[in-house]
Amino acid sequence: MQNNLSNLVVVGSVAFDSIKTPFGQKDNALGGSATYFSLAASFFANPGIVAVVGEDFTDNHHQILKNRKIDTEGLEKVKGKSFRWGGEYSFDLNNRKTLFTELNVFEQFNPKIPADYTNAEYVFLGNIHPLLQQKVLSQIKKPKLVGLDTMNFWIEGAHKELLDVLKLVDILIINDSEARELTKEYNLVKAGKKIIGMLGEAKNIPPTVVIKRGEYGVLAFQNGNWFFAPGFPLEDVYDPTGAGDSFAGGFMGYLAKTKDTSWQHLQRACVYGSIMGSFCVEKMGTERLQNLTNDEIKTRFGEFKRLTHFEE
Amino acid sequence: MQNNLSNLVVVGSVAFDSIKTPFGQKDNALGGSATYFSLAASFFANPGIVAVVGEDFTDNHHQILKNRKIDTEGLEKVKGKSFRWGGEYSFDLNNRKTLFTELNVFEQFNPKIPADYTNAEYVFLGNIHPLLQQKVLSQIKKPKLVGLDTMNFWIEGAHKELLDVLKLVDILIINDSEARELTKEYNLVKAGKKIIGMLGEAKNIPPTVVIKRGEYGVLAFQNGNWFFAPGFPLEDVYDPTGAGDSFAGGFMGYLAKTKDTSWQHLQRACVYGSIMGSFCVEKMGTERLQNLTNDEIKTRFGEFKRLTHFEE
Repeated sequence: MQNNLSNLVVVGSVAFDSIKTPFGQKDNALGGSATYFSLAASFFANPGIVAVVGEDFTDNHHQILKNRKIDTEGLEKVKGKSFRWGGEYSFDLNNRKTLFTELNVFEQFNPKIPADYTNAEYVFLGNIHPLLQQKVLSQIKKPKLVGLDTMNFWIEGAHKELLDVLKLVDILIINDSEARELTKEYNLVKAGKKIIGMLGEAKNIPPTVVIKRGEYGVLAFQNGNWFFAPGFPLEDVYDPTGAGDSFAGGFMGYLAKTKDTSWQHLQRACVYGSIMGSFCVEKMGTERLQNLTNDEIKTRFGEFKRLTHFEE
Repeated sequence: MQNNLSNLVVVGSVAFDSIKTPFGQKDNALGGSATYFSLAASFFANPGIVAVVGEDFTDNHHQILKNRKIDTEGLEKVKGKSFRWGGEYSFDLNNRKTLFTELNVFEQFNPKIPADYTNAEYVFLGNIHPLLQQKVLSQIKKPKLVGLDTMNFWIEGAHKELLDVLKLVDILIINDSEARELTKEYNLVKAGKKIIGMLGEAKNIPPTVVIKRGEYGVLAFQNGNWFFAPGFPLEDVYDPTGAGDSFAGGFMGYLAKTKDTSWQHLQRACVYGSIMGSFCVEKMGTERLQNLTNDEIKTRFGEFKRLTHFEE
């Protein structure tokens, strides 16, 4: 443990991405869901990261996380190469083609939770096999709020295991296409209601689902409550990679900071999540998140409010 | 003139639509841009309609407009058949295929403005040839606020005429794909800024553009101001036909009612427009707008506020 006790733990991937967009190209850039999540969350809390990397993960890469005071005790380094992904975006950035996926050390990922992390109250189970998500969660002694992300691959290939772990979490953060696939409902209101039924009962907060709609924003449901946060309109978007993970990082980071999980705070968490996603896409890879300031976040929060608020 | 002096004049189409959706089918339903616009606007103002119909437009159809106190002095009936359109929606309602278009009497449409309409302060130039839009506008003596809609057909086929009439209007209400085609900019913030440059200067309000993004909502720009109103999340969507025209009707109707065109009122006009669009799609054709109540609008306005507002 390098810093203060980490109250927010994320498990996911740390990877090297090769990204092609209409505006540029970047090879072997530090990426992965846990990287984007923890960089975004670090503006609100001290996240601790549970992931695996290979020998190609250098001190320079480590320094990127340490600069943001991210706790890396749970970041295991093993023999071999790190997870590598290559993707290319369409001219409008709305579609992407995976050029290659090399799981490498990620294939045998067996998450180990440092003793200090077991007291964390806020937990985010990033997009890995549902059985691993469950294994991580079982080691956290008294979680106050558990969020989960998943993807089509697990919805199709590990359906039962996914349904099992969903019963243990409070919040599912999911793409619209994944929500539709999971529920077999095209309509997102119907899909949201079905997902709430999947999350089970008797949690710390009422079951909550946050559906991410890419550049269009997010829609959050909880009981009779719903909230919409648009994507922040940007004149220059360079690289959508990591926007969804940055959303989750801002969302969970804000909740971990305030230690308040009321609906009003979940609404604000959606806004901070959207804001972190909007910064993420302004540069290639994690560059923008690495150089962001708290003042910029504060300014954009005010702009976001002006964008959506109206008087009665 | 059947009612009070009409302070809001709309020119556009009155048509018979044959609509197929995954949830049902309706043949020869009263439709057209001016119909949806004026039905939606009628909850706020007394719209007067400038359009042409054929002999197939019966007293029963007329009654639908009269029930909502829509002024039909500018609705000309001529020999022949009314404009007819047939369309079929995909399973997700996001794509539609035109099955047939019969212009009929609309082909020779030569809009005639009743003398009483020439004093109207609020004018909406629906989606017709830009030269006809200009002809209508030239007959309005002292317009206070002029809105315009157009479509790809005119952006491609009457580009110069469209640019000419744009210089005379205050507000362009346009789909995202049309905004992109008009400006050759994919990014909507860039597209919005370019459109503001096209609308010219020295108007009653600063040049304003409202970009409609279908189910995702609308984005409004004016100088340094912008505002986002999401599509209201609905569990049951039956027929998207007329949603954009209903938005424009609610938007212009609210402004005509309040006679206030400040940015704060334009924001609320966007919300009322979104609300009218959300009601429109809840039933086939114009059915929902025909049977809507002011109380339902008021209730949804409150729901809309809860959906988008958050505390600092």
